[in-house]
Amino acid sequence: MEIIYRLIGIIHTPFAERSGTPIQPAAAAGAVGRIELADCYRPGLKDLEGFSHLILLYHFHRSCGYELEVTPFLDTQPRGLFSTRAPKRPNAIGLSVVRLSAVRDGVLEVAGVDMLDGTPLLDIKPYVPQLNPAAVDRIGWFSGAVADLPGRIADERFSLTGW
Amino acid sequence: MEIIYRLIGIIHTPFAERSGTPIQPAAAAGAVGRIELADCYRPGLKDLEGFSHLILLYHFHRSCGYELEVTPFLDTQPRGLFSTRAPKRPNAIGLSVVRLSAVRDGVLEVAGVDMLDGTPLLDIKPYVPQLNPAAVDRIGWFSGAVADLPGRIADERFSLTGW
Repeated sequence: MEIIYRLIGIIHTPFAERSGTPIQPAAAAGAVGRIELADCYRPGLKDLEGFSHLILLYHFHRSCGYELEVTPFLDTQPRGLFSTRAPKRPNAIGLSVVRLSAVRDGVLEVAGVDMLDGTPLLDIKPYVPQLNPAAVDRIGWFSGAVADLPGRIADERFSLTGW
Repeated sequence: MEIIYRLIGIIHTPFAERSGTPIQPAAAAGAVGRIELADCYRPGLKDLEGFSHLILLYHFHRSCGYELEVTPFLDTQPRGLFSTRAPKRPNAIGLSVVRLSAVRDGVLEVAGVDMLDGTPLLDIKPYVPQLNPAAVDRIGWFSGAVADLPGRIADERFSLTGW
């Protein structure tokens, strides 16, 4: 079964290459981006300026292929792909929570971007912490790794092939 | 530009119809589900049992069409679609954070499901609160609404057409 989506906009960021790009929004506090929504979707942005943070779903457009075990940036041993946030996935969908700075003429100014320039946007959802789990007991292999997150940028590990 | 994804598994839940289904995992604490991953992706589940919660990305397979302003379940006035979690969206991608109870033979037992039975799964990502924003200032129109969340189930508002 195939599912077809269409881009609804483009995310512009300072990052032309994966190498050197923050590995997560939590490592990208200073990185400012701009989202241009296609004209036809702009009425859907109403009320968005009330939210300080947004969930962006996007396509890792320069990701090619995948392996079911990978060694994540924050770890030194291979992990099952679905326990990681690696961009090479069976369905290469990225998820980032960014700060919304302003909405002007259908363009969103955002901060904390960790995706490549030109990334195709699939969806925007409001970020509401009250919709998150109340208590999280275990974060698997991340538990030894999250302290390393601030400021971490990508190395060549998932450098993107086929481009 | 079209982007093609393939389902990697099926989410089984107790909910055959949208009406009566919890509107969010935060309203679905007791709802238990089962995810059957296609055989070829099962090696990617390694290390997942270390996490208490998972992010599921899935296709709202019974969602048809959309409007750019909708009145959400938790509100009484029309809001811009991208400020809501309504299932009828230009790209009908759902996002839920569920509790992982067990992984057995490529089948995930999960709790807090708020999607329809038979929902096509697109991706699984580990849920790590440390990757969320440290401080969220504003949650827009949700600020008057989140108190109503526990136990809320869907009414006919977004009842699914074309089926």
